[in-house]
Order: sequence, then structure tokens, then C-alpha cells
Amino acid sequence: MIHIKKINEIINGELFGSDDYYIEGPCSIINGKENFLTYIKHTKYIKYINTTSASAIIVDKSIDIPENNKKTILKVDNPSIAFLCFLKYFENTINTDKTNIISDTSQISKTARIGLDVFIGQNVVVSDNVQISDNVRIESNSVIDENVVIADNAIIKSNVVIHKNSIIGKYTKIKSGAIIGSIGFGLVTDNHKKHHHIPHLGKVVIGDDVLIGSNCTIDRGTIDDTKIGNGTKFDNQVHIGHNVNIGENCIIGAQVGIGGSTKIMNNVIIAGQVGVIDNLIIEDNVIVGPTSYVVKSIKKDSYVSGNPARNHKDHVRQDILISKLPEIYKKLFK
Amino acid sequence: MIHIKKINEIINGELFGSDDYYIEGPCSIINGKENFLTYIKHTKYIKYINTTSASAIIVDKSIDIPENNKKTILKVDNPSIAFLCFLKYFENTINTDKTNIISDTSQISKTARIGLDVFIGQNVVVSDNVQISDNVRIESNSVIDENVVIADNAIIKSNVVIHKNSIIGKYTKIKSGAIIGSIGFGLVTDNHKKHHHIPHLGKVVIGDDVLIGSNCTIDRGTIDDTKIGNGTKFDNQVHIGHNVNIGENCIIGAQVGIGGSTKIMNNVIIAGQVGVIDNLIIEDNVIVGPTSYVVKSIKKDSYVSGNPARNHKDHVRQDILISKLPEIYKKLFK
Amino acid sequence: MIHIKKINEIINGELFGSDDYYIEGPCSIINGKENFLTYIKHTKYIKYINTTSASAIIVDKSIDIPENNKKTILKVDNPSIAFLCFLKYFENTINTDKTNIISDTSQISKTARIGLDVFIGQNVVVSDNVQISDNVRIESNSVIDENVVIADNAIIKSNVVIHKNSIIGKYTKIKSGAIIGSIGFGLVTDNHKKHHHIPHLGKVVIGDDVLIGSNCTIDRGTIDDTKIGNGTKFDNQVHIGHNVNIGENCIIGAQVGIGGSTKIMNNVIIAGQVGVIDNLIIEDNVIVGPTSYVVKSIKKDSYVSGNPARNHKDHVRQDILISKLPEIYKKLFK
Repeated sequence: MIHIKKINEIINGELFGSDDYYIEGPCSIINGKENFLTYIKHTKYIKYINTTSASAIIVDKSIDIPENNKKTILKVDNPSIAFLCFLKYFENTINTDKTNIISDTSQISKTARIGLDVFIGQNVVVSDNVQISDNVRIESNSVIDENVVIADNAIIKSNVVIHKNSIIGKYTKIKSGAIIGSIGFGLVTDNHKKHHHIPHLGKVVIGDDVLIGSNCTIDRGTIDDTKIGNGTKFDNQVHIGHNVNIGENCIIGAQVGIGGSTKIMNNVIIAGQVGVIDNLIIEDNVIVGPTSYVVKSIKKDSYVSGNPARNHKDHVRQDILISKLPEIYKKLFK
Repeated sequence: MIHIKKINEIINGELFGSDDYYIEGPCSIINGKENFLTYIKHTKYIKYINTTSASAIIVDKSIDIPENNKKTILKVDNPSIAFLCFLKYFENTINTDKTNIISDTSQISKTARIGLDVFIGQNVVVSDNVQISDNVRIESNSVIDENVVIADNAIIKSNVVIHKNSIIGKYTKIKSGAIIGSIGFGLVTDNHKKHHHIPHLGKVVIGDDVLIGSNCTIDRGTIDDTKIGNGTKFDNQVHIGHNVNIGENCIIGAQVGIGGSTKIMNNVIIAGQVGVIDNLIIEDNVIVGPTSYVVKSIKKDSYVSGNPARNHKDHVRQDILISKLPEIYKKLFK
Repeated sequence: MIHIKKINEIINGELFGSDDYYIEGPCSIINGKENFLTYIKHTKYIKYINTTSASAIIVDKSIDIPENNKKTILKVDNPSIAFLCFLKYFENTINTDKTNIISDTSQISKTARIGLDVFIGQNVVVSDNVQISDNVRIESNSVIDENVVIADNAIIKSNVVIHKNSIIGKYTKIKSGAIIGSIGFGLVTDNHKKHHHIPHLGKVVIGDDVLIGSNCTIDRGTIDDTKIGNGTKFDNQVHIGHNVNIGENCIIGAQVGIGGSTKIMNNVIIAGQVGVIDNLIIEDNVIVGPTSYVVKSIKKDSYVSGNPARNHKDHVRQDILISKLPEIYKKLFK
């Protein structure tokens, strides 16, 4: 329960309407509930202002409040950021504090160094020479191999495996079931068509404030390292090959696969189910549409899509022309 | 070992041929074995009736038994359902009963409520306020977070993670490595191009008699819930985004990805490796062909395929015309 | 630290240049380091011979050593194989020996048979009647169900689940998070549109020297077995349906899905994100290009690609013609 005036203060808003009651939590505008707070993230939702059952609504400051309005309206510069602030504040008020607990059933090597206010859940394995900094949280049944370094405030969820020598940055979050630093898919084929698996001596280096989704797999480098830059966010089931190098503030959608040694620069957005082959360079600010298949390096600021990926507008035009093939065929042959 | 007459009784069949011996187990018609039972699931397998080494065969009642037949033939209305009945009966005769066991190495919170005849395997973590009903089976190294509710007769296989507040229905089966209720991929980008991960306060609600495949990931909702309806079946490695709502008796193939907030109604079939973007509505009885990419909502009873997905017949026609492009090009330019 | 003459001896090379110092480890040619060894795997890297900071370079014996060369050059028949030999030798000199350890926190059934020099990590569950041969290594938090057989020198990494009756061959490596032998996706639909999940009584049989990637899922057969042949290598997140039969020395790329009962013969290469439907036959030496969708059986020695997959050259030609559609359309309609 947070007082509506306190919320207005947190989000630095301007309050219109009823201002003396408590908010019980967040709700969506369509499934609004009395004494709950919602927000308008897109102009198409403005029509719900009068009909939602939510008691309070965060809106863009440019929106006119309807006449006869009975809700509390909180005007802000950026409703999405303001609602995010509220959610973070609210989450902290309901979460039980669990830091500073090392579970009895965890197995911590004597040579591991553990910081202050660390939470380690049940059956967690922390191997030799691991370094875990302050405020790190590692949840149940995760395995941390030798020489891994985890910086302060990182969160490792359940059943995660972090293989030897990996480095995890500050405030980085690794979701359940992710496998970090497993041996890469490097093969050498001999004259008898037998494939030999190459040892991988590189490591995985993940920056600060990164998000790795559930059941992602990030392989370690053959000799050099696999790197994920600060602020980059992965959805679930992403596969990253050995020696890949991803820059800062990228967004990688669910079920994307990136082939070995490909370099992705900064602020790149790769939508879901995209495949990128090995040894390419994807430059700054590139956008790759969903399910695309990238076979060539891409220059900065490009927007590509399709299989194979090409300029997005060309791809759309080609898709339209493909749908006109019956017409083309008729004109030519009938 | 089950007597052939007992089997005929279980499947409510009509028996022709030898009727006094024991069946040792099931076999396929191609790899038939003496004293084993098989079935004809498709007319293309009828030709094997005389050559298979299986001793007994379940067939559709409309099939004529070949002359000089030496097998036991069991005629039924629906051979697939009849063979399923036999498999279930046979499985129960060979399975050791393991219920009513709570492993010493499991960690069960004092505030968890555990029903009757529950099996909990090694190193299972059951957190605060979890409710587990009668006859539930949770296998080794799975993690059940706070406030999760698991209804009676559900089966949770090994290394599964069920995050806080999730609800699992009766007779639902969650295969190994699945991650249920992890935080969704909701981001807000600020003016400095930094992406902030939104807290997710919704939960995952899974109905009765659902199957979730190995290494599937189902994210919890941002504010509202992610829902999977009764009787729906998932193959392995499916990804379900936050706030997705799937209806009853749907089939979702392996490696499918469903974008956030998409609504899928009842009896929908989505084949393997399909991608569906966010915020769509897929209505009742829709069929989506393998590897399709769905970018628009789909009306009920449609059959779509392709990338982008369109009417299946149109898609097939276009694929044929694409294969005629050399002919078209030649006619025009040579 | 390995003496350069010792390395030359291991790889059976011919040494030119400085021959009395110690190599500290491997490096890539682009990120070369003093006292480290690299190699030229492709002629396009020859230009780096003079500029790399690496002290020693393995090259093909046909390459001319540049004048004024200051590096140690080791000439061999096959630089990739030679570098592999060095990596394996080097890895063994730095790895701590950990065999012959059964962790206190592992749970080993009394009816399991464990060979010599076996390593079993923390919280590993080994169930009834499991057979583990000599020199097997099973890492932390993995689960081995009833009746599983693991042959000598196999390596099972962390958080792997191997379900009942599976057989794992010699020197086979299963990476973290893989799920072997889970129940397959076999459904029977009744007259009320309800889908019933069929019991699966087959098993998974994996040959010798196989590599299974992280978070792969391999389902067990319905009645017959799912089989993976000797020497076959899987990248991460591969899905193999029930009753699939894969031959020897195949390469299966990341995020590939193979439908139930499909048979893949020997020396087949399937690139990343390919989908293959059920009940096909892919014959010897077939190559399938990345992201292809295979809907028909493929004859031996074919190279196919595209969606749907067809002869690779035809596919490339069609892609070119699709890019010429604007030109075709203009000529016809404008």
C-alpha cells in the first residue's frame, strides 16, 4: 500500500483529482482494478481513461483530462519510465529481504571469495577460486565453476551453469537454465571424415547491466574470448557461438542464433528467431527484422529483413511482388 | 506379460486367430517381435500384416484379414486409441510405485503444504507457502519458488524451475529443464538509448492436463498473467512471451516462439519452428504450417503457412510460381 | 609452459627460426601475444605472418617463409590438426586432475555399478541399476535416471538430465543443460478434440565419440529407439523428435529441429536453424544449408537449401530472380 501522493512524488508527476488514498498495486488499463494504478503507454489506450476500473492513471503531460473525470490523473514527461519507477518501488516494498544468507546445502569451495550481503540458495555449487562480490544473489541449484568472477549486485537465477573463467559484470541478471561458457562448437575434420572437437581455452566476458534470458547458451571462445557488452539485453533461448563479440545496449530477441566469431557493434536490435552466420560484422544501430537470415555484414544504421536479409524496404516490395506472381504468370502465359 | 485375451478385453476388441498366449510388450510393425503386440495406424502399413514378426496386431474393424493369416488380429473402432490404452496399461504393470516418498535431500519450507501420496525427488527445493496437492510427483533437482500452487496428479520432471506465484493444473506434466514463470522481456528505453528491464508482477497460470516440453520457457506477465488453457500440449523448446494467453486443446510444435501479449484461442495447431509476433489474435481451429512467420491476426478455421504466413493454398501456389521464375524470366528477356 | 622444440615434436613439424624458449599458451593470429603460439588455418591469414605479435606460427608446409622473418615457423601437413594436437596437449598440462572422486553430496543408488577413476560432482543423482564405466565424469547437479548405461570416458557436464534406459557411448560428451530420453511428443486425438499423450517405452541410444550441445533435447522413442551414431556432433539447442535415427559422423548445427521418425544417414551436414519434418530419409553425405526447411526425403550427395529446401544452385538462382521481380513487373505492366 503506497499513498497516491507518495507515488506522485516518486515519479515527479503533476496530480489531478482525488489525492488522499492508498494504491494497492499496478494493473493494466484493460484489466483495471479499484485502488490500483495504471498508465497510458500509447495513444491508442487513451479511450480507456473513462472506462477502466483503475483508480489512478499515469499519462503524458500533453494529454487533456476528460471532463467529468473521476480518476486520479498523474501527468509526467514519459509515462513508461514513470510506471517503471513505480514498479521498481512497489516491488521493493513487497519483496522479503533475503540477502546475507548462505544456504547450508550450498557447496562453497574454501578458496572461493564471497563478498558482503550475498545470497546463495540451496544446492548451489561454488568451485575453487570463484570471486563473488557484494550483494550478489545466486538462486537454487546453480553451478559456478572454477575461477568465475561475479561482480556486485549481479543476480543468477536457478539452475544456471557458469563454466570456468567466465566474468559476469555488475547488476547483470542471468535467468534460469542459462548455460554460460560451455565449450564451443569448433571441429576439425580429418582425412577419414572424422570430426575432432577442439579444446576451447577462451572464456565468456559479460559486461554490466546485461540481461541473459532463460535457457540461453553462450559458448566460450576457442582462444580469444566471447564478449557481451554493457547494457545489452537477451530474450530467452538465444544461442551465441564461440568468439562472438556483442557491443553495448543491444537487444537480442528470443531464439536468435549468432554464428561463431561474428562481431555485433553497439545499439543493434535483432528481433526474434533471426539467424546470423559466422564471421560477419553488424555495425552500430542496425535493426534486423524477425526470422531474418543474415549472410552478409551490415553497414551501420541499416534496417534489414528477410531470408536472406536485405534492405527492409526492398524486402517488403519483393514480398508484394511475390504475391503478384499469379498475375504476372497469367499475363505472360495465358 | 499380459494375456492376449486380457488385452482384447482392455481395448474392447474382436479377436481373430490364436488366443492363448502372453504378450511381452509393444513393438512397431516394422521392427516386429514374436510375442509382442503392434497396430496399424495408417492404411499404408497394411502391407506389413503378413511379414511383420509381431504376434498380434490391432487393426481397424473395416480391414479384411488376409487368408492364411497366422497372427492374432484384434479389430477395434480406433486402432490408435486402442494401442494407447494398451500402452498405458502395460506401462503401469512395469512401473515401480514410488509415490509417498519425500527425499531426505529435498529442502521443503516449513510453510509449504504437501498433500497425500506425493513424491519429491533428490535435491528438490520447495519454497515458502508452496501448495502441493495429492499424488503430485516432483523429480530430482527441480526448484519450486514461493507461493507456487501445484494441483493434484501433476508431474514435474527433473531440473525444472517454477518461479514464484505460478499455478499448475491437475494432471499437467512439465518435462525436464522447462522454466516456468521467469521474468518477461519487457524493456523501457530512456533518452540515452539505455534499456531498463521492467519488473514483472504477473504470474503464469497453466490449466489441467497440459503438457509442457523439455527446455520450454514460459515468461510471467508484466501485470496481468500468462495463461495456458486446459488440454494444450507443447513440444520441446517452445518460448512463450509475457502476457500470452493460449486457449484449450491447442498443439504447439517444437521450437515455436510466441511474442508477448498474443492471444491464441482454442483447438489451434501451430507446427514446429513457427514464429508469431506480439499482440496478435489467432482464433479457434487455426492451423499454422511449420516454420511459418505470423505477422497478422488470423480468423477462425484458417490454415496458413509461409513467411510471412498467408492462406496455405496461396502459399503453395506462390511457391510453385517461384519455381517457375526462370521460365518467366526467359520468356521476357531472352 | 612448453618448450618450442617439444611442441614441434608433438605436432611432427619442421622448425624454422628461434628454437630455444618456452610457449605460454595458444593465441589467435589477430590477437597475437609474445611467447604464444598461433596458426594459419586459411590462406587469407598469411598476410598477418609478419605483423602478429605471436612468437610462433604453425603453417602449411607449402607456404614460403617471408624474408627477414623473426618468428618461429613450424611447417606441417595440416595446420588445423597440428594446432588441435597442441591445444589438447596444452589443456592437459593446465587441467587439475579431478578423477576418482565421488562427491559426498551426490546420491548414488546402492544398485548402481560405478567403474574405476570415475568423477561424480556435487548433488548428482544416480538412480537404480545405472551402470557407469571407467573414467566417466559427471559434473554437478546432473540427474541420471534408472537403468542408464554410460560407457567409459564419457563426460556429462552440469545440470544434464539423462532419463531412464538411455545408453551413452564411449568418449561421448554431453554439454550442460541437455535433456536426453525425455518422453516424446506423441499424441492421439479423440472424437472430442482432446489430445492424449502416448506413453513412450523406447529409449535413446547414443554412440561413441558423440558431442551433444548445451540445452539440446533428445526424446526417447515411442516403441523403437531414438539413435545417434558414432562420431556425430551436435551444436547447442538442437531438438530431436522421438524415433529419429541419425547415422555416423554427422554435423548438426545450433537450433536445428528434426521431426519424429526421420532417418539421417552418415556424414550428413545440417547447418543451423534447419527444420526437418517427420518420417523423411536424408541419405549419406547430404548437406543442408542454414535455416532451410526440409519437407522431402533427400538423395545421397545432394546439397540443398531454402524454404522449402531444394537443390542449392536452383535455390540461389531463384533468390536472384526474386530480386529481379521489380524489373520483371516493370517490363510487363508499365
